[in-house]
Amino acid sequence: MRALNHPNADSIELAGVLDALADPIRLQIVGQLAAAGGVVCGGFDVPVSMSTLSHHLKVLREAGLLRVTPDGSFRRHELRLNEVEGRFPGILSAVVDNVIGEFARP
Amino acid sequence: MRALNHPNADSIELAGVLDALADPIRLQIVGQLAAAGGVVCGGFDVPVSMSTLSHHLKVLREAGLLRVTPDGSFRRHELRLNEVEGRFPGILSAVVDNVIGEFARP
Repeated sequence: MRALNHPNADSIELAGVLDALADPIRLQIVGQLAAAGGVVCGGFDVPVSMSTLSHHLKVLREAGLLRVTPDGSFRRHELRLNEVEGRFPGILSAVVDNVIGEFARP
Repeated sequence: MRALNHPNADSIELAGVLDALADPIRLQIVGQLAAAGGVVCGGFDVPVSMSTLSHHLKVLREAGLLRVTPDGSFRRHELRLNEVEGRFPGILSAVVDNVIGEFARP
């Protein structure tokens, strides 16, 4: 597998973070990562094709929100919550809280 | 002037809010509104043409972030901070804090 590019925390941009989060499927992915404690190995439960999911994961990764590492035949997906919080305090955590709250609504 | 459409607070969507904020000029506009106490009558100090500024203000208004009302020959622009906070707690306030912090950096 080719090495995947991840921006350094210092080069993560606010508009890029917001743009990456501005999609219902990507919000679901971020919510599932947060609900799983920040790490998901393998897939996500979202109503899109594998190729569309790959695209969304790439957008999140390139914006600096997601770290993707090979883990045997799977990929390990980790939300870069602490790094993004360190750069833009309060934003990603508030988005996560809102998405998890949305899931929890009856 | 035609009446401008503003979504009700209940119909403001998270992905729409994030998408509207995901632009450096619109972040500057939101920052200037916040720095001015939430209301700006007339223009903004952004490096774009009047027509581009109008477009950005329309995007913010249609996402539910901005209330625009005629005020004589000017328009009054008001950040809908309390309404957006009521619907998605913590997100817009965190974005505002980060944008204002960015302006304040030497």
